[in-house]
Amino acid sequence: MAIEGRGEGFSGRIRLGMVGGGQGAFIGGVHRIASRIDDKFELVAGALSSTPEKALASAREIGLDPERSYGSYEAMAEKEKARDDGIEAVAIVTPNHMHFPVAKTFLQAGFHVICDKPMTTTLAEAKELAEIAKRSGKVFILTHNYTGYPMIRQARAMVANGDLGKIRVVVAEYAQDWLAERAEDTGSKQAGWRVDPAKAGAGGAIGDIGTHAHNLACYVTGLRVEKLSADLSSFVSGRKLDDNASMLLRFSGGAKGMLWASQVAVGNENGLTLRVYGESGGLEWAQEEPNRLWYTPLGQAKRLLTRGGAGANAAAAAVSRIPPGHPEGYLEGFATIYAEAAELIRAASDGRPPPDGIALPTIEDGVDGLAFIEACVASSKKDGAWVTL
Amino acid sequence: MAIEGRGEGFSGRIRLGMVGGGQGAFIGGVHRIASRIDDKFELVAGALSSTPEKALASAREIGLDPERSYGSYEAMAEKEKARDDGIEAVAIVTPNHMHFPVAKTFLQAGFHVICDKPMTTTLAEAKELAEIAKRSGKVFILTHNYTGYPMIRQARAMVANGDLGKIRVVVAEYAQDWLAERAEDTGSKQAGWRVDPAKAGAGGAIGDIGTHAHNLACYVTGLRVEKLSADLSSFVSGRKLDDNASMLLRFSGGAKGMLWASQVAVGNENGLTLRVYGESGGLEWAQEEPNRLWYTPLGQAKRLLTRGGAGANAAAAAVSRIPPGHPEGYLEGFATIYAEAAELIRAASDGRPPPDGIALPTIEDGVDGLAFIEACVASSKKDGAWVTL
Amino acid sequence: MAIEGRGEGFSGRIRLGMVGGGQGAFIGGVHRIASRIDDKFELVAGALSSTPEKALASAREIGLDPERSYGSYEAMAEKEKARDDGIEAVAIVTPNHMHFPVAKTFLQAGFHVICDKPMTTTLAEAKELAEIAKRSGKVFILTHNYTGYPMIRQARAMVANGDLGKIRVVVAEYAQDWLAERAEDTGSKQAGWRVDPAKAGAGGAIGDIGTHAHNLACYVTGLRVEKLSADLSSFVSGRKLDDNASMLLRFSGGAKGMLWASQVAVGNENGLTLRVYGESGGLEWAQEEPNRLWYTPLGQAKRLLTRGGAGANAAAAAVSRIPPGHPEGYLEGFATIYAEAAELIRAASDGRPPPDGIALPTIEDGVDGLAFIEACVASSKKDGAWVTL
Amino acid sequence: MAIEGRGEGFSGRIRLGMVGGGQGAFIGGVHRIASRIDDKFELVAGALSSTPEKALASAREIGLDPERSYGSYEAMAEKEKARDDGIEAVAIVTPNHMHFPVAKTFLQAGFHVICDKPMTTTLAEAKELAEIAKRSGKVFILTHNYTGYPMIRQARAMVANGDLGKIRVVVAEYAQDWLAERAEDTGSKQAGWRVDPAKAGAGGAIGDIGTHAHNLACYVTGLRVEKLSADLSSFVSGRKLDDNASMLLRFSGGAKGMLWASQVAVGNENGLTLRVYGESGGLEWAQEEPNRLWYTPLGQAKRLLTRGGAGANAAAAAVSRIPPGHPEGYLEGFATIYAEAAELIRAASDGRPPPDGIALPTIEDGVDGLAFIEACVASSKKDGAWVTL
Repeated sequence: MAIEGRGEGFSGRIRLGMVGGGQGAFIGGVHRIASRIDDKFELVAGALSSTPEKALASAREIGLDPERSYGSYEAMAEKEKARDDGIEAVAIVTPNHMHFPVAKTFLQAGFHVICDKPMTTTLAEAKELAEIAKRSGKVFILTHNYTGYPMIRQARAMVANGDLGKIRVVVAEYAQDWLAERAEDTGSKQAGWRVDPAKAGAGGAIGDIGTHAHNLACYVTGLRVEKLSADLSSFVSGRKLDDNASMLLRFSGGAKGMLWASQVAVGNENGLTLRVYGESGGLEWAQEEPNRLWYTPLGQAKRLLTRGGAGANAAAAAVSRIPPGHPEGYLEGFATIYAEAAELIRAASDGRPPPDGIALPTIEDGVDGLAFIEACVASSKKDGAWVTL
Repeated sequence: MAIEGRGEGFSGRIRLGMVGGGQGAFIGGVHRIASRIDDKFELVAGALSSTPEKALASAREIGLDPERSYGSYEAMAEKEKARDDGIEAVAIVTPNHMHFPVAKTFLQAGFHVICDKPMTTTLAEAKELAEIAKRSGKVFILTHNYTGYPMIRQARAMVANGDLGKIRVVVAEYAQDWLAERAEDTGSKQAGWRVDPAKAGAGGAIGDIGTHAHNLACYVTGLRVEKLSADLSSFVSGRKLDDNASMLLRFSGGAKGMLWASQVAVGNENGLTLRVYGESGGLEWAQEEPNRLWYTPLGQAKRLLTRGGAGANAAAAAVSRIPPGHPEGYLEGFATIYAEAAELIRAASDGRPPPDGIALPTIEDGVDGLAFIEACVASSKKDGAWVTL
Repeated sequence: MAIEGRGEGFSGRIRLGMVGGGQGAFIGGVHRIASRIDDKFELVAGALSSTPEKALASAREIGLDPERSYGSYEAMAEKEKARDDGIEAVAIVTPNHMHFPVAKTFLQAGFHVICDKPMTTTLAEAKELAEIAKRSGKVFILTHNYTGYPMIRQARAMVANGDLGKIRVVVAEYAQDWLAERAEDTGSKQAGWRVDPAKAGAGGAIGDIGTHAHNLACYVTGLRVEKLSADLSSFVSGRKLDDNASMLLRFSGGAKGMLWASQVAVGNENGLTLRVYGESGGLEWAQEEPNRLWYTPLGQAKRLLTRGGAGANAAAAAVSRIPPGHPEGYLEGFATIYAEAAELIRAASDGRPPPDGIALPTIEDGVDGLAFIEACVASSKKDGAWVTL
Repeated sequence: MAIEGRGEGFSGRIRLGMVGGGQGAFIGGVHRIASRIDDKFELVAGALSSTPEKALASAREIGLDPERSYGSYEAMAEKEKARDDGIEAVAIVTPNHMHFPVAKTFLQAGFHVICDKPMTTTLAEAKELAEIAKRSGKVFILTHNYTGYPMIRQARAMVANGDLGKIRVVVAEYAQDWLAERAEDTGSKQAGWRVDPAKAGAGGAIGDIGTHAHNLACYVTGLRVEKLSADLSSFVSGRKLDDNASMLLRFSGGAKGMLWASQVAVGNENGLTLRVYGESGGLEWAQEEPNRLWYTPLGQAKRLLTRGGAGANAAAAAVSRIPPGHPEGYLEGFATIYAEAAELIRAASDGRPPPDGIALPTIEDGVDGLAFIEACVASSKKDGAWVTL
């Protein structure tokens, strides 16, 4: 029954550095756990904060060698490059506005990069970064982590396999409530940068969570959003970025869609859901119950497909660790991104082609994410006019 | 524990006639059951089909006196008016295009009218009918039946009471799948007229089910849709009316919304749902589990409010019949419309003002429904431009 | 899509009398609604209370002719027998201790009887009543109403059809919380008689709700409980009858089971559930979501069977009224008992054999119910020794 | 928002060895992931299989130094003791019959022990092991992993806090279906030893999963099972141990309970559930949705308490890693056992008293587990007579 990670066997741990993720951060800790779950990485260096003392304190707290705690990411890139046992890859877990300069620096210094989303704060930067990555020959991984859930892999493979027929309708939602009040005034580091255009970019809810919903809709269906018509709101007084966004979507191939991203929907913790309807079937999935996928073949009873259960396909099995009924969660989904990143990095280091079956989001998906954000903002400014991505 | 209907005590049954609802119909049977549940009506006459023989056969099947089975609604209005024991009210359960002429005829002949939705097939007719009803002094009831569910009453009273604070976001959906294929080709009487513009009017899914979602959103929040931007599709080949509609809404007072109506969403039977989020709370309800209402006060744990359970308010209790945990369903919700209709009719007949606590949809809601349909069609034709209702 | 009741066509309403069900009662109102839903009965007489003035007031409240409101059931039986338009059947909705004398009186007077459960207060009475019913040639209907739910009919037919293979395990529960405190001290008429051995019989929770769970387990599986080992408790101080009962069951054919009945399980409104596991499949059902039945064929994904949906069988369809997704509830399930009762009564009156497809609980099931109660009490007194039913 | 593990700061990794957990095993891989999640252990040695070649192949697969892969656990104990950098603790993840000899060997050799459940195969062994552990002064951790779920911690703290009042009823279930057929004939290593009395001990389902349910019921309520009456079955032909067990429980303090453990309940993947009802409240939890706990205060609406959400208490927060709505699963719950084990081991090594707030199962719980298994077998042999634990 047991499968450990992607399970091809152990071949040494990849030496990893981290930029961002110091005390008070959220996603840095997630990346660290995710990197350990399948035992393919070893965190050996960090520039955990832009304040050197904080960086050091944070490094001590997580057991990093103080010698390899750096006061700036530039120093880390330079010093680690010079070491024989220097890092091979870097995880970027800073607020959005630092993704671009950090990623650029490390790619150009010859490191593989694992970067949180959204990839950059502007579409122009995203395109430039894609070029830089391409030229670098290094692996660039975008942690659209929800693509790592086994039942999302299952759904994607089912759509690709034609189980739903031609797709007609896609409904994606990402609803939260943690910004229903001015959390940014309570000293929340998380809230603070997310509502600040200088750090978050042009998108509030659309950048922070809307991009996940957009990415997941495209990832599962294999379709691209061609046009969208968006209505962004900032309900909480004094907020500059959107905290609620509703939009209509038109996909390549003729499918229609809706997307709702909100951080003021009281009663929603992390309500990312995806529903896909085709000519011959429908799929429904909710992130808060990630081990379940509801599948209705046209004219038949609805079926509950579970991770590891009867009806689970090879794509799901490839990223499952434990038997059905033993819930895998957010951290395991995230770990799948790391496990597959390790395979790509190892292959690249060895000069091998990427192994089969890897289904990670690409740097082009990262560019699409910024195109999505900018299209949302542009459409909303034009009172919901259709904007082409 | 027991409450029978609205429970003010029995005061004789109102004599009811029915137009439409013959063999093969759906909603006619529903109206008949609904009219019996609280024992306030007695069906005594009918023009159940526009084909006289069918009308008679249908009448026999449901136990109507053959003498009072009429071959046309005009005949029924005339003959029943002449009888001492003639009908007092008529239920109109025909395809949409007949609502207007039948309602007009009966109102003008001095009968109270209970009419299925949408009220007419055009906004112009709807406005005219509202005028006719007003002049007639008779009671006109529109069976937006979902307003009869106790937990919808509860939700409405909670919003009115300020439990959610100022409303920010409203998400309404009505998803079905029974028209995912060409059911109209299989001899389904139900499908046949619903996809025919001559009988259904300008709206397909938006008229048949979208109006329910629109009505419910307004009914619960007490807000009106001021503008909408809609994208209608006809996915099934050869279909003239929409079978999928997605739209953005802007409500009076600044709330934003989304509405999705689909009859091609495979895996959805009768997926009417409503979610309302305000500054200080959120509510979530799904028609397929109508006895449950999820309520989250800002910053507190989500609560499951149940019909008749702890936390049920007076508005819910007023339309509940049996103790909590004993599910009331669609027919009981519909029966509430009839029970309240009976009270209004009895009061009008007696020259009394309407009793307190009645919360039925009004004829203005019917006009709004047609305004909604026409706005959807107009917006979609203009590629989703905002249209004012 | 529409099916009205069992739908064979109207053939006049059966004239019904009622004993019990006056003001403050619960189940009487339920019977009245249930009798109207499918339009096969007309309530024309009643002995609604053992206090004549209360009986009359109750009769007025529900619109009964005061002339046919009787101060005692004996008077009703005598007077109605003498009328040309006298009742044909009587519904007995009194506290348990009156079931036997009333049923006996009416059967012997030549009336059909519809009687609430448990059938009597002792097994001896139950057996005697079964004999009396048999000799009378009259129809006796026991309202184990949960057998009227379409998905229970579906489950029963599936088991009979072998879809689950040989049954191994049955888990039945009926959990409530309304007696978690001394509701009997608050003037609740419902609570008062249920905790009084003189009126309820030897069983508290086991008689009131345990019998439903027992009946449903047997009804669906077609098996009989051969032996049981029970542990009864009276948690609320001063209570004479059980308010919580747990037991092990051994069924005919070797299946094992558990049954839990509780009226002190805080958070449960009307938690009747049934789970049945066989060699090749499993079924799970919960009364609070009655339109859904979960079916897992061995080695396949779990399926959600819905009333009227894909996968619904003929047994379910026969007792459905409205399309899938439009919830039918407790009252409709109860109405099915009345609809089938009407068919049996009409057939008996006409000298015809019972029509096919009727699946009502029998008077033998009523005897089994009392055997169950007495076995529970006996086993518990003997510290859980196995007792044969 | 973020909390990493129990978060007191990193203080070096504990050097861990493992006995069992070679290729084809399930729980070994789980222990390894769990030991890594919070970064408090480093696996450095193993005796992964009793077949030396298999042990070595397994060691290579997971990246163990081949020099520290041992062909027997005795060799590992001896050699590691002799090393300066030898292991500090051992994880025992063998089939049940090896728990005792391995644990005894390592405790007596001066190592801390983390041992899977059930602790031994007989009660006598369990008691002896408890003595050995006590004398050794070493930490002994029993991985009743379900106690590591945050909402189980929440529930336990709520009961201890009196939120439910005096406990009346406890219902525990653990239902699976993977042994509904003869999986032991298909070469499943997992199934093979679990149905073999020589390896599993006297309990089949009761030992493998029933002990978890028993442990959880006691862990959450703080009560002990004083007596039980059990009915064990072996439904699958040829099976020597129980594959279905139903039983009645009597707890210290007067609470009553039921426990059902089954491995033949088709449609259940890993259905461990616990329901606890007291005088003033009820709690309901299901392992397959571990981040949710349903709480009903008497007379109030049911509340959904979520991991990290409003209403989560300190006990839950202490073992949470990520924000609400981001599901933590089985592996994180298991990791909590390891994180707390690390704290106990570190404290013991440093000669400090155990830190506050640790809520791990104890070795006495392990003794109780064997007492439970033997009582079940004894009771069932005596046809369900009450047996005192």
